[in-house]
Amino acid sequence: MTLVDKVIQLNVLKQVKIWFDMTVNELVEEMTYAGFQAVKLADSVRILTDMIQDKKCTKFLGLAGALIPGGMRGVIVEMIRNHFIDVIVTTGANLTHDLIEAFGEHHYQEKKIVNDAQLYKSKINRIYNVLLPNKGYVTLENNLEPVFSKLPQKEMSSKEFIFELGNKIEDENSIIKAATDENIPIFCPSISDSILGFHIWMYSQDHNLMVNPTLDQKDMLDIAFDSKRSGALIIGGGVPKHYIAMTMQTTPKALDYAVQITMDRPEAGGVSGAKLEEAKSWKKVAVEAEVVDLVCDATIALPIIVASLLSKKLQN
Amino acid sequence: MTLVDKVIQLNVLKQVKIWFDMTVNELVEEMTYAGFQAVKLADSVRILTDMIQDKKCTKFLGLAGALIPGGMRGVIVEMIRNHFIDVIVTTGANLTHDLIEAFGEHHYQEKKIVNDAQLYKSKINRIYNVLLPNKGYVTLENNLEPVFSKLPQKEMSSKEFIFELGNKIEDENSIIKAATDENIPIFCPSISDSILGFHIWMYSQDHNLMVNPTLDQKDMLDIAFDSKRSGALIIGGGVPKHYIAMTMQTTPKALDYAVQITMDRPEAGGVSGAKLEEAKSWKKVAVEAEVVDLVCDATIALPIIVASLLSKKLQN
Amino acid sequence: MTLVDKVIQLNVLKQVKIWFDMTVNELVEEMTYAGFQAVKLADSVRILTDMIQDKKCTKFLGLAGALIPGGMRGVIVEMIRNHFIDVIVTTGANLTHDLIEAFGEHHYQEKKIVNDAQLYKSKINRIYNVLLPNKGYVTLENNLEPVFSKLPQKEMSSKEFIFELGNKIEDENSIIKAATDENIPIFCPSISDSILGFHIWMYSQDHNLMVNPTLDQKDMLDIAFDSKRSGALIIGGGVPKHYIAMTMQTTPKALDYAVQITMDRPEAGGVSGAKLEEAKSWKKVAVEAEVVDLVCDATIALPIIVASLLSKKLQN
Amino acid sequence: MTLVDKVIQLNVLKQVKIWFDMTVNELVEEMTYAGFQAVKLADSVRILTDMIQDKKCTKFLGLAGALIPGGMRGVIVEMIRNHFIDVIVTTGANLTHDLIEAFGEHHYQEKKIVNDAQLYKSKINRIYNVLLPNKGYVTLENNLEPVFSKLPQKEMSSKEFIFELGNKIEDENSIIKAATDENIPIFCPSISDSILGFHIWMYSQDHNLMVNPTLDQKDMLDIAFDSKRSGALIIGGGVPKHYIAMTMQTTPKALDYAVQITMDRPEAGGVSGAKLEEAKSWKKVAVEAEVVDLVCDATIALPIIVASLLSKKLQN
Repeated sequence: MTLVDKVIQLNVLKQVKIWFDMTVNELVEEMTYAGFQAVKLADSVRILTDMIQDKKCTKFLGLAGALIPGGMRGVIVEMIRNHFIDVIVTTGANLTHDLIEAFGEHHYQEKKIVNDAQLYKSKINRIYNVLLPNKGYVTLENNLEPVFSKLPQKEMSSKEFIFELGNKIEDENSIIKAATDENIPIFCPSISDSILGFHIWMYSQDHNLMVNPTLDQKDMLDIAFDSKRSGALIIGGGVPKHYIAMTMQTTPKALDYAVQITMDRPEAGGVSGAKLEEAKSWKKVAVEAEVVDLVCDATIALPIIVASLLSKKLQN
Repeated sequence: MTLVDKVIQLNVLKQVKIWFDMTVNELVEEMTYAGFQAVKLADSVRILTDMIQDKKCTKFLGLAGALIPGGMRGVIVEMIRNHFIDVIVTTGANLTHDLIEAFGEHHYQEKKIVNDAQLYKSKINRIYNVLLPNKGYVTLENNLEPVFSKLPQKEMSSKEFIFELGNKIEDENSIIKAATDENIPIFCPSISDSILGFHIWMYSQDHNLMVNPTLDQKDMLDIAFDSKRSGALIIGGGVPKHYIAMTMQTTPKALDYAVQITMDRPEAGGVSGAKLEEAKSWKKVAVEAEVVDLVCDATIALPIIVASLLSKKLQN
Repeated sequence: MTLVDKVIQLNVLKQVKIWFDMTVNELVEEMTYAGFQAVKLADSVRILTDMIQDKKCTKFLGLAGALIPGGMRGVIVEMIRNHFIDVIVTTGANLTHDLIEAFGEHHYQEKKIVNDAQLYKSKINRIYNVLLPNKGYVTLENNLEPVFSKLPQKEMSSKEFIFELGNKIEDENSIIKAATDENIPIFCPSISDSILGFHIWMYSQDHNLMVNPTLDQKDMLDIAFDSKRSGALIIGGGVPKHYIAMTMQTTPKALDYAVQITMDRPEAGGVSGAKLEEAKSWKKVAVEAEVVDLVCDATIALPIIVASLLSKKLQN
Repeated sequence: MTLVDKVIQLNVLKQVKIWFDMTVNELVEEMTYAGFQAVKLADSVRILTDMIQDKKCTKFLGLAGALIPGGMRGVIVEMIRNHFIDVIVTTGANLTHDLIEAFGEHHYQEKKIVNDAQLYKSKINRIYNVLLPNKGYVTLENNLEPVFSKLPQKEMSSKEFIFELGNKIEDENSIIKAATDENIPIFCPSISDSILGFHIWMYSQDHNLMVNPTLDQKDMLDIAFDSKRSGALIIGGGVPKHYIAMTMQTTPKALDYAVQITMDRPEAGGVSGAKLEEAKSWKKVAVEAEVVDLVCDATIALPIIVASLLSKKLQN
């Protein structure tokens, strides 16, 4: 039997069917037999399903990009509460936006195109088509100091600091609180590059509280060393992607499952757009691992993936 | 009340909620209050809903890119059978792939990465992660000649030719057949740049059948002139986008509804990635029209949009 | 010797050096030893140099995207006058913009961001950051009719029509005129999808002049059949890329040299962003050919490439 | 005079001319009158020229992406030695790659496409089309410990640490050494997310040397507070872009000049692809500042820009 015959017998592409009130999971099942990014979306769900059901697998979630302004806070909390992941690595910006909402402020939709000069005059900041009034940052500042005063007054790793912070947050919809509740560590290696980091530094001027992400190295490496297998869902690349990958590079481990969702492209050589296949040369991803690079905005892809995973009633 | 206050009162971004077995339409409704491309996806559905329900609106569908290899044939047929659109403009490649499947051949999924040199030796052609054996083209050739012999032996516009062709196709899942059945014209201004066009030319060497897309101009202009209002769903840009837009430019009309789905970017100045807002300067799109540029692969976005539209049981 | 050793000995990356008043060609030579798109730019020049110097090679140029609004008219004319290419395939839009300038009109720079609604009111059309007043189209219309009346009043292929048109153009900077002067055929398979095509159709309403791109098929195939070897520089993808590729697919030939410049990406499966490697599976490109996909806006890449080629004083 | 007339009189687009052995600076001058990204490249040079000549302007350089593997080390050193910039913010990866070359190792070109599994077996890591053998990391490790032992054994900010490190580097082509020589501070807020950061942590296990980027906050803010005016050239986005921008956000300052070079797109809402215009709403960039978002791989754009700046013999 020739290669042609094998291909013909095994992997016929089926045209996607849709119907009245079909579920998200049914749509993903239809996409299983399609092409281009549709099949990559279905493959992402399949690989994550295997990852979640692998009881010996330590599951990392990398969160870069403005996910809370994009509306993904609830979807991420759902992943945490369902223990679809074990460890989070994120940017300081995601923590900052989570806290702004935890303290009662909101992001807004730009329903009509507004000029950035006008926004500046109105003290409203733009994130693509989402708006965040300065008031959000004022509320953040007013709430952080009292919270900081209740935290251990010592030098902490970002992981330790975020865990302690989570204990002081009341909003059940907060990523930070949910992670603390569920005992899922959050690492933030670039915390000093964020408004949260700025306020930590301000507070540290006359208090002993200090955060140093170099101290996270041991905990992160221990997690990797202790893992039998590992996997990662990486959203948006950046520091979170690099930090998870570097942890594999500096230990004898490699990711056995890996799914990446990004709109960045590989052509300029940056880590965010780099293909996961490339990570195999580094032993960041295991050579035999099946990987998916899904090229799609996470605000579309992530809710579909997590809604589909929820429908599977996975035992993990 | 300041701009800040107005924004705060009217357009609070709500974090997307997901749940067990939620429907595609429920997901789109959740995205209505989100940011980035998620809200653009929801806005696309909203504008298309308005367009479909506008009884005085002539609705154009532009189809560029390898949509049948991507698995979108059934979704497009669904749009035709439900009369979500009135006029199609497409590339010759889409017609060619539709006919290959109509004549019983298939596209295949590249489940394992194969080298292009190997594919060449196995006579299998690659379209990104989709495969199409040469056999598909052989079957096409074998079936086209008998069909051509039953068509009017004269010079036709692409629209007239495709309509006549549709009458000879038996496959109910064919875009060409569905369009003929539903009396929806298909225009293909670049038909000579396709394997279908190549076979037309071959056949024309000793027959009187000939296709000349210049002859389409009148019919396309008449449709525009006769429309009270007009709208377009444009997938992938290219000739179909330009042809619909040019029809507006050369008549006193302008699109009142416009949604574009593409992964192309505007920075190199090409028509495929150009923003719809720009089309307002040309009067291709009406100045007051609300438009959406959805940046997403159509194999993900289109099934979601059409599944959501189906769930609305629109009266058009 | 291990693979590592071979790599180390043979292909050390050298950091790019720059200096006061270095030439474009010197910069390209420096890029020869760099990474990412810089080395791809240098590789493009190298492959095109080989192609131009190969006396048995038929050299195709595919032109898609708004190259004249981008400022590339002179660079393309330079390629024609130097016989860096033998055959051009282009879009109707490129011909239209070439004629608008040939008849004395201009494109303009958008030096200050202007709203599209304002542009519409001022009868100015936007192409990304370039402006084209409607007056350009009025001048085109006024000049085309007298020119059309001097052309053969019969049905012609696009190639024949464009050649005849070139004989009536006086502007030495015109791509159409330069190609006619140098006896380089221009094919335009999608000519009916352009304002030029629209005016052809208008004129044909009461004259015998008619253009039918199906008639181009024979000439294009003959060129391929007669070629010993072939090569292509493909800018922007679209119909020109597909038409050149399809000509290889439908003859026993395949491109021996191929360079592609585009900002489109492969992920949505469309032809414009598809990698040239993929074209090997189709035998559009020869399996053994070295190809380059340069990801860069052509308005930056093309002048560099052609300026570098000019500095080599190639004998072709 | 109407808007049309004003546009016509003032900003005629001129087609780019090229000639034998033209210089890079002449090419940039030609691009001044072109469209799309070509004019953006020329505008970048113009804005940076103004910035460099503004004696009261503090000039930031943001470096993200794998610039040394791309071949940009010499170009960046040229900027430092010429004092085109005053302050650098970079990623740990750029420092790591600079040190690997400083200690005598090299990056390599992937001249022939190699499978990532094979690379893994050969202990060679891929960065897009560039290769880096593991040996580079071994040499780094062997050289770092002796260097670390000569540095102050205390907790330092990243800026202080990198400055001290620069004093121990002998390679004149090193970015770190050049910056120390020229007294240009380098900040690295995400240093713990890098192999350099990993080795710092390893060393800190039994030494008192420690790096904490939270301690950089004061120095960075002081620089901003002390600046009369400020400007930035931002390459690749990421943490460096955000950190420079955040410094403006948290002080009464705003960038008066800003040029961004990236291939990332804005549609997914992340900071790397966000347009600079958007930064005006945040007061990260001054409302009246002219900004350019150049969409081009930095390995092409940066050498052109810096070669052009060199040719201007700027007095700063």
